[in-house]
Amino acid sequence: MKKIVVIGEILVEIMADQIGEGFLNPLSLTGPFPSGAPAIFIDQVAKLGQPCGIVSTVGYDDFGRLNVSRLKSDGVDISAISEDPARPTGTAFVRYREDGSRDFIFNIEHAACGQVAMTEAAQTLFDSADHLHVMGSSLSSTTFTELNLHAVQSIKRRGGSVSFDPNLRKEMLEKDGMRQAMHKLLGQTDLFLPSGDELTLLTYASSTDDALAELFGKGVSAVVHKNGSKGATYHDVKQSVTARAFPVDEIDPTGAGDCFGGAFTTYWLRGTDPTTALLRACAAGALAVGKRGPMEGTSNADDIDSFLKHHGELT
Amino acid sequence: MKKIVVIGEILVEIMADQIGEGFLNPLSLTGPFPSGAPAIFIDQVAKLGQPCGIVSTVGYDDFGRLNVSRLKSDGVDISAISEDPARPTGTAFVRYREDGSRDFIFNIEHAACGQVAMTEAAQTLFDSADHLHVMGSSLSSTTFTELNLHAVQSIKRRGGSVSFDPNLRKEMLEKDGMRQAMHKLLGQTDLFLPSGDELTLLTYASSTDDALAELFGKGVSAVVHKNGSKGATYHDVKQSVTARAFPVDEIDPTGAGDCFGGAFTTYWLRGTDPTTALLRACAAGALAVGKRGPMEGTSNADDIDSFLKHHGELT
Repeated sequence: MKKIVVIGEILVEIMADQIGEGFLNPLSLTGPFPSGAPAIFIDQVAKLGQPCGIVSTVGYDDFGRLNVSRLKSDGVDISAISEDPARPTGTAFVRYREDGSRDFIFNIEHAACGQVAMTEAAQTLFDSADHLHVMGSSLSSTTFTELNLHAVQSIKRRGGSVSFDPNLRKEMLEKDGMRQAMHKLLGQTDLFLPSGDELTLLTYASSTDDALAELFGKGVSAVVHKNGSKGATYHDVKQSVTARAFPVDEIDPTGAGDCFGGAFTTYWLRGTDPTTALLRACAAGALAVGKRGPMEGTSNADDIDSFLKHHGELT
Repeated sequence: MKKIVVIGEILVEIMADQIGEGFLNPLSLTGPFPSGAPAIFIDQVAKLGQPCGIVSTVGYDDFGRLNVSRLKSDGVDISAISEDPARPTGTAFVRYREDGSRDFIFNIEHAACGQVAMTEAAQTLFDSADHLHVMGSSLSSTTFTELNLHAVQSIKRRGGSVSFDPNLRKEMLEKDGMRQAMHKLLGQTDLFLPSGDELTLLTYASSTDDALAELFGKGVSAVVHKNGSKGATYHDVKQSVTARAFPVDEIDPTGAGDCFGGAFTTYWLRGTDPTTALLRACAAGALAVGKRGPMEGTSNADDIDSFLKHHGELT
């Protein structure tokens, strides 16, 4: 089985218990929950039994231990997670508003996870990997971008593949050299996983069809266009397949996109047909939405089977 | 009335609701509470109606706003609090253990409050101040120590005075130049406020009497030796006065020492006799212990009067 590697932030999330605005008063909170988009992604991959690992840094504290032990027990290779003795593990305080939007207070860039650097352990992990997943949201600095580009080279040189979830804030593209770096990454991407209008964020084209043609021309072999509660569409040069999102009670959408991505990438690497891969990824996303805590909703194959049976999609 | 200034960290504290060890699982928490030893000290001073200000840095986030608005509404001059656009406000996660000891996870050094620097607003505040309170726990870097030494000079030059609460971790004294800096500070100190064996931490002497003689020889005019639940003793060259601590239900001792220090320093600067100043400072400390949240227990003169009446110390 192919081994998937991701680079990026490991955090804990602290959640406000009551809906409302901001953090201007003492509130009831619950946490720490394991979190960080790349960590959630790779935990979902591990739960499906796929070999995988993450390159990251945590602090020398319980928040780091909580994450590392969760990832390890779920089957993630943690050999390339470093411990920073001087900086705490990253944190994200989250409060949902009435309208479903969220207020955040982040400690990421100057926390342990903001200091991820090339290490021997990281190189060993890259040398053992068949696939790199690039998290756009983790490309917050030149160092992170270069580390990903290095891993792309390292893994592609040995015949590996790359998936890329842009998940980029538009302001970041204005940073020096960021747009070129993104184009370089996209030029090496096999599986592209944009959400909504991210489909055209890095293309010259502005329509879906033109953007797809441009992406396939660049060497992308598959595009999964995520549209949240409207479902997702798979495209390759031969076919397009759409899956509807499952109707679920939304408890906590944080991490659902990462679970979708982790599941889809896993099935795609296994050669599962796009219809099935998309259906199972949508189930993983829906299962994530139903659990409180960003990484609490990752699911194994049995969870997905049960969910699909319950929804009449599997007999 | 004399204006008191302090330099140091502004934080929020997040408290675990249940007693126990560490943060290895999602827990019920309450926060953010305004915190930071220098911030609690100066809030207590302001509540007693004394002019005062703080030099510090917060993040551009609700945790910073919560602190700044609390300090402002309690009467602290906030003109020298800067906002760091890139770093979050400092945080401290706290969980009490069965034995009353505490587990912490701090984000201080690399948070906004770790970046306090000399600014025009800080100099203006020093120029308006009559007294500097030095928090040993905030002297975590050469920059902080130099900033305090600069403020000492600035305020002493105009006939002002200095109080110094060592509250030092012993390891910090081993840092390059730290011991010399502490001796320099002590040489400028008028009111010294050590706890327990901190009395002899910076002296050559090892007994109380010898330490006091050495301190008075250096120019210290008053020493308040804090002994937690055993009370506190005031010493000057003419007299020693001991006050017992009040028996109170301990809800949350965090910040009690800072409230004691803020109150004593205020009354001392007003020329209040040592017996009364000590009694009122012990009341402020006891009131702080009875409230949950590090800065929630600061008290005004009426609160202290009521408390003393209730304990038969004021008619």
